[in-house]
Amino acid sequence: MSLETTSPARSHGLVCGDMLPGAGNRITDVPGVKVGHQTVIEGNLRTGFTAVLPHSGNIFLEKIPAAADVINGFGKSAGLMQIEELGTLETPILLTNTFGIGTGINALIRRELAENPEIDRSGGTVNPLVMECNDGYLSDINAIALTEADAFSALAAASSDFEQGNVGAGTGMSAFGFKGGIGTASRVFELDRGQFTLGTLVQANFGKPGDLTLPDGRKPHPNNTDQTEERGSVIIVVATDVPLESRQLKRVARRAAAGLGRLGAFYGNGSGDISLAFTTAYRVPHFIEGDFVAREILQEGRIDVLFKAVAETTQEAVLNAMISAPAMRGYKGRSRPSLRDWLNGLD
Amino acid sequence: MSLETTSPARSHGLVCGDMLPGAGNRITDVPGVKVGHQTVIEGNLRTGFTAVLPHSGNIFLEKIPAAADVINGFGKSAGLMQIEELGTLETPILLTNTFGIGTGINALIRRELAENPEIDRSGGTVNPLVMECNDGYLSDINAIALTEADAFSALAAASSDFEQGNVGAGTGMSAFGFKGGIGTASRVFELDRGQFTLGTLVQANFGKPGDLTLPDGRKPHPNNTDQTEERGSVIIVVATDVPLESRQLKRVARRAAAGLGRLGAFYGNGSGDISLAFTTAYRVPHFIEGDFVAREILQEGRIDVLFKAVAETTQEAVLNAMISAPAMRGYKGRSRPSLRDWLNGLD
Amino acid sequence: MSLETTSPARSHGLVCGDMLPGAGNRITDVPGVKVGHQTVIEGNLRTGFTAVLPHSGNIFLEKIPAAADVINGFGKSAGLMQIEELGTLETPILLTNTFGIGTGINALIRRELAENPEIDRSGGTVNPLVMECNDGYLSDINAIALTEADAFSALAAASSDFEQGNVGAGTGMSAFGFKGGIGTASRVFELDRGQFTLGTLVQANFGKPGDLTLPDGRKPHPNNTDQTEERGSVIIVVATDVPLESRQLKRVARRAAAGLGRLGAFYGNGSGDISLAFTTAYRVPHFIEGDFVAREILQEGRIDVLFKAVAETTQEAVLNAMISAPAMRGYKGRSRPSLRDWLNGLD
Amino acid sequence: MSLETTSPARSHGLVCGDMLPGAGNRITDVPGVKVGHQTVIEGNLRTGFTAVLPHSGNIFLEKIPAAADVINGFGKSAGLMQIEELGTLETPILLTNTFGIGTGINALIRRELAENPEIDRSGGTVNPLVMECNDGYLSDINAIALTEADAFSALAAASSDFEQGNVGAGTGMSAFGFKGGIGTASRVFELDRGQFTLGTLVQANFGKPGDLTLPDGRKPHPNNTDQTEERGSVIIVVATDVPLESRQLKRVARRAAAGLGRLGAFYGNGSGDISLAFTTAYRVPHFIEGDFVAREILQEGRIDVLFKAVAETTQEAVLNAMISAPAMRGYKGRSRPSLRDWLNGLD
Repeated sequence: MSLETTSPARSHGLVCGDMLPGAGNRITDVPGVKVGHQTVIEGNLRTGFTAVLPHSGNIFLEKIPAAADVINGFGKSAGLMQIEELGTLETPILLTNTFGIGTGINALIRRELAENPEIDRSGGTVNPLVMECNDGYLSDINAIALTEADAFSALAAASSDFEQGNVGAGTGMSAFGFKGGIGTASRVFELDRGQFTLGTLVQANFGKPGDLTLPDGRKPHPNNTDQTEERGSVIIVVATDVPLESRQLKRVARRAAAGLGRLGAFYGNGSGDISLAFTTAYRVPHFIEGDFVAREILQEGRIDVLFKAVAETTQEAVLNAMISAPAMRGYKGRSRPSLRDWLNGLD
Repeated sequence: MSLETTSPARSHGLVCGDMLPGAGNRITDVPGVKVGHQTVIEGNLRTGFTAVLPHSGNIFLEKIPAAADVINGFGKSAGLMQIEELGTLETPILLTNTFGIGTGINALIRRELAENPEIDRSGGTVNPLVMECNDGYLSDINAIALTEADAFSALAAASSDFEQGNVGAGTGMSAFGFKGGIGTASRVFELDRGQFTLGTLVQANFGKPGDLTLPDGRKPHPNNTDQTEERGSVIIVVATDVPLESRQLKRVARRAAAGLGRLGAFYGNGSGDISLAFTTAYRVPHFIEGDFVAREILQEGRIDVLFKAVAETTQEAVLNAMISAPAMRGYKGRSRPSLRDWLNGLD
Repeated sequence: MSLETTSPARSHGLVCGDMLPGAGNRITDVPGVKVGHQTVIEGNLRTGFTAVLPHSGNIFLEKIPAAADVINGFGKSAGLMQIEELGTLETPILLTNTFGIGTGINALIRRELAENPEIDRSGGTVNPLVMECNDGYLSDINAIALTEADAFSALAAASSDFEQGNVGAGTGMSAFGFKGGIGTASRVFELDRGQFTLGTLVQANFGKPGDLTLPDGRKPHPNNTDQTEERGSVIIVVATDVPLESRQLKRVARRAAAGLGRLGAFYGNGSGDISLAFTTAYRVPHFIEGDFVAREILQEGRIDVLFKAVAETTQEAVLNAMISAPAMRGYKGRSRPSLRDWLNGLD
Repeated sequence: MSLETTSPARSHGLVCGDMLPGAGNRITDVPGVKVGHQTVIEGNLRTGFTAVLPHSGNIFLEKIPAAADVINGFGKSAGLMQIEELGTLETPILLTNTFGIGTGINALIRRELAENPEIDRSGGTVNPLVMECNDGYLSDINAIALTEADAFSALAAASSDFEQGNVGAGTGMSAFGFKGGIGTASRVFELDRGQFTLGTLVQANFGKPGDLTLPDGRKPHPNNTDQTEERGSVIIVVATDVPLESRQLKRVARRAAAGLGRLGAFYGNGSGDISLAFTTAYRVPHFIEGDFVAREILQEGRIDVLFKAVAETTQEAVLNAMISAPAMRGYKGRSRPSLRDWLNGLD
């Protein structure tokens, strides 16, 4: 693996920061994490679901420490309130379009009920985490076309290997006037006991045309765009195998804002910019035994390496999303050009 | 109207605080506010939807200033993030059971799309507000039986006149080991330009048996309960015609916690205790003209009367919910006794 | 020890809740916690400092897990921002009057510099925690009369044995139109490995005359008060030996609001109501060795006993403060009657 | 005025964003805002106070709408809690070193008491706002040498004309391994009724050597630095004459994080990064008449221009601070090189 070839951005000479990427330069470099897409491109639809699975076990029974930072709350994501209170995630994460939230919630509830007949017996319920961006420019979002079956397909497709660009929840995305999408990046670093990984996945649908700033200082502007305002949203999912408590995870999540800033974003009024971080280092059991639990967590004074990794991977993941996404034509004949074409001098 | 006879609690001699109730001692004393229920009692189901409409116009086009306080965030309510960011509510409020959130979201989206073809033209989306408590003790919640049609029925039933107790989203509720439900109360007070009103509606589903404290110091304990822990949740919706900005509304919402405390609650770990406040005094238009807008708001130094009113109405609304709710038998033969029977010496 | 005799409130038949108090029914029942007062009653002054020491070691080098909940932020307390971010407390806690904050900060800085020459060598600074209520009714607060020497005296006086009422930072306090002050209470409970304790100390300076509600339903109103509005503030300090992470401590701190509600408070506009919780169960070292640290923490599902204990001890500590405080005459001839006299039929 | 010549950064060809700077490209372009410094360079001291006055009247009697965003709360600033609750600022803003907070608080209290004998009569107190960065690298911070007289000198020096770089609270600052300091920038834009201004002042004391990124993509690294970690803090003060409510001001303040991100920062663990925004467009009177007040505020949908201006001015103000600051030698012979020298090829 070389620094230059492990991501769409790097293959165009665009390097974000100076930390070393993981083997695949993607969120699934964090052991156990899987990503799956269900892409819906038909008629007026350019949409889908992307699922992020923190581990392959029963997530409801073995919850995941998590926390979110709401950079700008103009958004409809569901499930964040309980994560803030309890510091745990108990379903896979679904990303989709703005009007797919209700369907995503229902799909996750049904999945957990099917996997956990004990939900009924123990009197508990389940907190689905579904986050979204608006793909209404390229897709007929008002059709509310996504189904629970689409969500299940994304969940079933989860793998350590996955595509970036116009796939899953990234299908209909736009960014800085170009085509947006799903992107990812990772960084590795040494702590006691060896190498650890932080990986980030973004659903990139934000940015005002003309504001995009590349790491080398260039500012690509799409030709012939009819977009003049900041619009859209960005969802950032950060995974790590470093053991952190939820307060630390919230601090880690917040650093995605630095990565967005480096890209030229200013967290526009209508942009739902949300960052969620989780760790795979330990699990929080649903059925507890005993009153106390032993944990190992990172010393606070060692956290800067994670902060830096989040800033770098957020920046790179957005570039990877955009460069992976070919130009697309969609609803009402609207289209978005590709940053890859611009970089290749074709736009 | 006399202080003694305008609520179920007062008819049992239970008076909360010393402020004067509104004409109906209910949230709909705030002019324009309407409440509707869809009650589902059939087979194993004891559930429903309750809709609160801040005004009878197009809420998406004429948004409502609002803010929430999360007293304890163990809950699945949707829509609060955007309200926190923007300080406005743009749909009716739906209350339901925990697994009805997705369906409630979809119903509200469809309602707004039907009422507002301009949602598509303007590129905007809509932020549905749906809040919930778990009725899984008395109802087969895992059936996920509520439909969008049920939500529409609750919305269509909205009226200034509405029932309390085992209705709508209150149908399957429990509180302090007794039957819970929907309750309401209001207070009136003088400010410049005349009389103003604050009204509160609760979905009461919280409290540990034995903790309930009446205003006269009595502590009713249900007989034969199998519940030993704090469980459930409580949703508090506060309406007023006093003009407030969203920061002030958040402060107002927070005072519901004082009312819960007076009842003997301690905001248990598993209780999703959420308070939302809105004002009908002005509206925030979706389509704006000009860069500035004129507002009149309450002087901060005059806000204590609203704080006091929230504490009193929250306390009374919960008692009204419980006293209005007859004993109920439901799913798996489980049952909850009625506080009214206890007060009447029948329990 | 009997339930009836271990506190000023209990000696008047006022019992808050049903949990068992600790041996002294005070915050210092939590092993290692000490409290000291410096009381200044001279001329126009009725003021002072109260110090709470989480342990008797070097608190800067061995920090204390802590978190605060701001119930109402009309107040001038210093040090809370860093506690929110890092989840640790690194100085003793000082309580004082509103204009004593700056002096308290300087005293704590000087104390830590004297104890820790390594502060300079390591390049770190120190985050003093000083909280306050306004004693300007009974004391000439504008004299800014407290000195760093007064703060050192309070710190030096710290002991597991301490007085309640008109002492230290409680000297000039008022509550519900009566004399306020410093009060305390504790509760004990069983968890794995034995008995644990939660103790609370309050600086009670809040409440509108006529709103005070006793556990038996009586509502004492002071005679001849010139106060008609809610005014003042209340600081609540909660200590426990149960191991909690900072997110859990924040949840615990928040439950003080329930205790205040039970007393008839509604967190008035001008009342700075702040609750801080810390645990003595483990320490966070300033100089770290290794990248990871092992911790044992409470299972979230076991936290309700602490929530209940906070509500009960907050309620009782305020009553203890008021009952321990004799009537006082102060600045400009103003006076506050004693709740103890009212209870004894003397007011 | 030309875009190229109105700031230290622009005179070196470094342009941040594409908006037009105000006449002086500084915070005092916002009418009424004044800045004053008291610089202390003597012996081992390299420190001082910087005062920002929102208007020249009595700020306690005519409070200023304000809000803060805590980007990273590792800091000791005082006064933010009440601003969060009430949305108003009632003293000038003082910036200083970490151990100058207590002295700054006392100075502001004394100033307000002297200006407002009614503080005593009305029973109110005052909430001093003092923010800080640690200048312990270049200055003997442990001497706690600053006096209230120093604070008064900074307040008295307030003017629309002021210096940047090694002045006032910026005297001992470091940034990205270079000399830091006080910097400023502004932007103007059109809204209904004419031109409006947003101006920013920073106390820049943050950043890891090697992380600094210039707008043209260059990454200046200081020679011979002994600093290897992110350290320090940054305080950002944003002023505007656009009428905003406090919720909007909080949103505006948060966008400073984007400007910091563009500079290469990641909000390091030990960096107290705090952004405060205020508006001069209206005032909130201490003594209120009537229950309601009329306000005009910005339509939410027009806020992006302010967000963009904050990102641009934060980025530029930090560069202006660094470029204005000559190399400095201080405590224990330590020194920081100047970014200006690096830009001029002299480092």
